[in-house]
Amino acid sequence: MSGTAGQVIRCKAAVAWEAGKPLLMEEVEVAPPQAMEVRVKILFTALCHTDVYFWEAKGQTPLFPRIFGHEAGGIVESVGTGVTDLKPGDHVLPVFTGECKECRHCKSEESNMCDLLRINTDRGVMLNDGKSRFTIKGQSIYHFVGTSTFSEYTVVHVGCLAKINPAAPLDKVCILSCGISTGLGATLNVAKPKKGSTVAIFGLGAVGLAVSLFPNTRLVSDFEIQNVDADAKPVRLVSVSQAAEGARLSGASRIIGVDLNSNKFNEAKKFGVTEFVNPKDHKKPVQEVIAEMTNGGVDRSVECTGSINAMISAFECVHDGWGVAVLVGVPNKDDSFKTHPVNFLNERTLKGTFFGNYKPRSDLPAVVEKYMNKELELEKFITHEVPFSEINKAFDYMLNGESLRCIIRMGA
Amino acid sequence: MSGTAGQVIRCKAAVAWEAGKPLLMEEVEVAPPQAMEVRVKILFTALCHTDVYFWEAKGQTPLFPRIFGHEAGGIVESVGTGVTDLKPGDHVLPVFTGECKECRHCKSEESNMCDLLRINTDRGVMLNDGKSRFTIKGQSIYHFVGTSTFSEYTVVHVGCLAKINPAAPLDKVCILSCGISTGLGATLNVAKPKKGSTVAIFGLGAVGLAVSLFPNTRLVSDFEIQNVDADAKPVRLVSVSQAAEGARLSGASRIIGVDLNSNKFNEAKKFGVTEFVNPKDHKKPVQEVIAEMTNGGVDRSVECTGSINAMISAFECVHDGWGVAVLVGVPNKDDSFKTHPVNFLNERTLKGTFFGNYKPRSDLPAVVEKYMNKELELEKFITHEVPFSEINKAFDYMLNGESLRCIIRMGA
Repeated sequence: MSGTAGQVIRCKAAVAWEAGKPLLMEEVEVAPPQAMEVRVKILFTALCHTDVYFWEAKGQTPLFPRIFGHEAGGIVESVGTGVTDLKPGDHVLPVFTGECKECRHCKSEESNMCDLLRINTDRGVMLNDGKSRFTIKGQSIYHFVGTSTFSEYTVVHVGCLAKINPAAPLDKVCILSCGISTGLGATLNVAKPKKGSTVAIFGLGAVGLAVSLFPNTRLVSDFEIQNVDADAKPVRLVSVSQAAEGARLSGASRIIGVDLNSNKFNEAKKFGVTEFVNPKDHKKPVQEVIAEMTNGGVDRSVECTGSINAMISAFECVHDGWGVAVLVGVPNKDDSFKTHPVNFLNERTLKGTFFGNYKPRSDLPAVVEKYMNKELELEKFITHEVPFSEINKAFDYMLNGESLRCIIRMGA
Repeated sequence: MSGTAGQVIRCKAAVAWEAGKPLLMEEVEVAPPQAMEVRVKILFTALCHTDVYFWEAKGQTPLFPRIFGHEAGGIVESVGTGVTDLKPGDHVLPVFTGECKECRHCKSEESNMCDLLRINTDRGVMLNDGKSRFTIKGQSIYHFVGTSTFSEYTVVHVGCLAKINPAAPLDKVCILSCGISTGLGATLNVAKPKKGSTVAIFGLGAVGLAVSLFPNTRLVSDFEIQNVDADAKPVRLVSVSQAAEGARLSGASRIIGVDLNSNKFNEAKKFGVTEFVNPKDHKKPVQEVIAEMTNGGVDRSVECTGSINAMISAFECVHDGWGVAVLVGVPNKDDSFKTHPVNFLNERTLKGTFFGNYKPRSDLPAVVEKYMNKELELEKFITHEVPFSEINKAFDYMLNGESLRCIIRMGA
């Protein structure tokens, strides 16, 4: 495997040459990893709505040609100087946000917002030299969030790679490198519902913004608050399923799903949601409806839509004395969160989360183990699979709202 | 001591006959305790701004004649039927908010907002029969927050009495039954700064509202949001000292006091405050000033003024990734807390607290022990002492901003 170390590798990559146009399969040159970089052979990648969002490039400065992809699993091919944590043959998940292990955030037990490697959607090059490792006949091709997994080989900063159990099936655990972990962590790491508690989850995927979008657009918000695309077709309930999965794992006794589209309700049951509220069915604010259903409010809530009104409802629907609300969905640029401060003084807590508060290198291996020991079910999130040559079909599935997660099998 | 059990006791009480008029020393009849009630001989009481606030009765329905007082220490004289936790001779602190040990709040580890005995400033009678235990020549006199400690004997629900170490000097630990515990708990129980961390405390007592007011007016807010009296003379830094004392006990390395009145700064040093910021000295918002002083923000903040702008600053001045802000001060009726939701999404937490999240019966005994083993300094909070006969002087000291806490010695 290390016969290629130090050499340029020629391989296939799906390149986005223009915003919104189908990706083209190209032969790219992938340069060897530099200091603190790792070259990874990608075996499986998945499509996430953040890829689609930046590929559509409706709300941000376009950066093309670019290789998208950030939810993936692969094997280390070679490492650059200074890399001691990884060696060729290690199984890894590339992650769009990193963990340098040196900054104040990494050294804090409470934060995963690494100063050095925090997601940067505007940067299309490597940190080390400000250049790309991808070229096509000499033309530089931009990276995407430091991962660019729509390529058979890619180069990633060592701080953005989680080393995982080599026995874990990469075609399943690859989806842990982004969205699934975000929703799961929002519940398990941040909301932390106790056994037997009541959890409300806002946003089953409707109202314009695809639910599978928010775990990722959330990340965008650190750099640029994007107005969500109100015309986007609804994509199915990835996030509620993630958050619900977290709630299920926590042993919550009631999981209340809230959405403006009642069609989502039946499907959500598969993911542990036990009750449903459609705010349209009620004249009073949904927080009051939930308070009546739960004798004063839920113990925990997770807001996954990005709608400012849903955020306010998610906060105000938690019980006084102990209720905790967690924000996941990305807001609009000009939104303002408003509530009467007495709602806080009556001992409610409001938090937000980034990548489910997981530190990518330190924490993802244990999430993989949760799958390995059958605590966490990943199969139900995977609705489609396509060979790499048909990657554009994965975009269609997502845009049509047909897929939860579509796995793209490389080398096929 | 129990020779008086079951009989009416005649004793002295300081009665407020009219709003804002000096209390009059009267002989009152104190009826025996009924079911779940306890009659307590008060040895020491202190004056707290909540007493003054309801005595002035500018912002609420007047309820007179009334016996005020809620910060006190005493000895059980006799107990009513059903009382098993206390017996004559036990040393107790009466508390304005109770702990029934049966409701969902009491059974929750996370809440101290008892459903049965949560503070009710509008109720002037006992829960058991809706009547007062105080009369003067047959005329009923109203209770205040279930304690009415400006009387040599008072009747209190057993759920509002914390049984404490009989070796504890009641003339010191009596101040733990309200304000001191509120500020202390806000830091120790809710903000929970780690050793070596940076804490900002908003409100050293200026801008109209006496700082010693807020731990108590906070309590008012559960029932009726009172607009704070902008004409009130500034009273000294009780609350910053409480919160700072909590920060000091937590081993915080930097305690930044924020106030509009720079005169408070020198005094605040005695209470552990290491640095000061007067927002008036800066053109930029104080949260930006603090962020620059602290390389991105403080680890924890505690807001003690009740000003909505201070609340917003206190939240926005905490560091992303791990910062926690705690609200203590009571807001105006029509205030709205506003912030961009991305401030939450970047992993900041906002909480509020009621009585420092202490459960009165379960937790106050341990706070008393903190004083007994010299972890907690109470003497520096006590600036004045008067005999019961001169209780009106305590009001003057507070209204003139001269006192932190004035102890009133009963039976003198």
